Amino acid sequence: MHQSPVQEPPLALLFDVFGTCVDWRSGIVRDGEALGLRLGLRGVDWAAFADAWRARYQPQLDTVRSGTRAWTTLDVLHREALEDVLDQFRIDIDSADRDALTLAWHRLDPWPDTCEGLTRLKRRFVIAPNSNAHIALLVDIARWARLPWDVVLGAEIAHAYKPDPEVYLRSVEALRLDPSQVMMVAAHNGDLLAAARCGLRTAFVPRPTEHGPGQTTDLRPEHEVDLVVTNFVELAEALGA
Amino acid sequence: MHQSPVQEPPLALLFDVFGTCVDWRSGIVRDGEALGLRLGLRGVDWAAFADAWRARYQPQLDTVRSGTRAWTTLDVLHREALEDVLDQFRIDIDSADRDALTLAWHRLDPWPDTCEGLTRLKRRFVIAPNSNAHIALLVDIARWARLPWDVVLGAEIAHAYKPDPEVYLRSVEALRLDPSQVMMVAAHNGDLLAAARCGLRTAFVPRPTEHGPGQTTDLRPEHEVDLVVTNFVELAEALGA
Repeated sequence: MHQSPVQEPPLALLFDVFGTCVDWRSGIVRDGEALGLRLGLRGVDWAAFADAWRARYQPQLDTVRSGTRAWTTLDVLHREALEDVLDQFRIDIDSADRDALTLAWHRLDPWPDTCEGLTRLKRRFVIAPNSNAHIALLVDIARWARLPWDVVLGAEIAHAYKPDPEVYLRSVEALRLDPSQVMMVAAHNGDLLAAARCGLRTAFVPRPTEHGPGQTTDLRPEHEVDLVVTNFVELAEALGA
Repeated sequence: MHQSPVQEPPLALLFDVFGTCVDWRSGIVRDGEALGLRLGLRGVDWAAFADAWRARYQPQLDTVRSGTRAWTTLDVLHREALEDVLDQFRIDIDSADRDALTLAWHRLDPWPDTCEGLTRLKRRFVIAPNSNAHIALLVDIARWARLPWDVVLGAEIAHAYKPDPEVYLRSVEALRLDPSQVMMVAAHNGDLLAAARCGLRTAFVPRPTEHGPGQTTDLRPEHEVDLVVTNFVELAEALGA
């Protein structure tokens, strides 16, 4: 809950992506609404649809974390979860439209401060996503949202999902740095707690509308972090970039 | 030796880096000369030194390719080879200077057309290095030479060295593409031959001074390739980017 004094700046910054860099909820709503308009679907609450889709995410990852299922890409998991969500909302669309809607996760807009902050941070630090998404999905999001990554790291390299320590440690290893030279940036307490336990430094950036206007979780840090800032531009300021 | 007609453009381009994107020889000469000036080393032919250093590269990789040695980073291989080269040139410098000189491989300048070509190509295609260098080295070169990669792929992901097919196939897999949707760009016939055998498309970009003014190898394609261009800007033109 408290903030430790800032020491030497890190050499590299790792970023959570869904929620921290990009606004997944609005992106899914936008593509859902466009699909609804095209197909004449009426009365669908696409925000509730997006929340229901995302709600299946952590239970899906748990099947891999527990070893029940082999590591797989989020494209596969998103597509599987979509089947359930469509049933729940009593929406029937054909297979091509299901495939297309799954790709909504590749077209997510950044938060207003994301690109300016990353561009400034990149001048001084190596910046990379450390996400549960696979490489191809992160590349598409980066190209869509203009996220100027130096390198794409994360779950695919480790064949594990956060908060498994392997994801943090393999990303740090790929940079040939010590964990203490790397800072994890995220809007999620669980992500930062796991990173800190691996020896990384941590920055909490709240994204208070990630889950919509009524969000009650991850509004503030719940564990010791090295930095708390309100957005990526403030993060650049705080780190002298 | 002949060029097949260009079909559909690819979706992603993979690039060899040493020699194809950056001029390693001039970079090593520059840092060698600076070191010589600082330490008062006289009469060193730094171009010959650079060539001797690079000449140890393929035999070193062969020890990994043959399974004699576990996969390792070029930082380790460059540092080991440096010991031999310093002996050969009867140069004695301390360990800190040896470490510093090894990092010359992280500070290599692009060819004059590299950045403009890559920037144009990135508008239309996913672009990534597919090099024998490890990720951290490729990140440093990209930041030094301003190479705007979408993602860093190559030997470290495969834990193999080109021309082992694994390097090409794992890079293609990371992009979730088919080999036929990916084009390998290189100044080296061996690299392109191996890529073509994996089903990738190929573009030959000669770098006739990579090995200095008297270069006799890799001046032209020696196998069938999809494209031959003289530089990366021409490559962008040829691919409509």
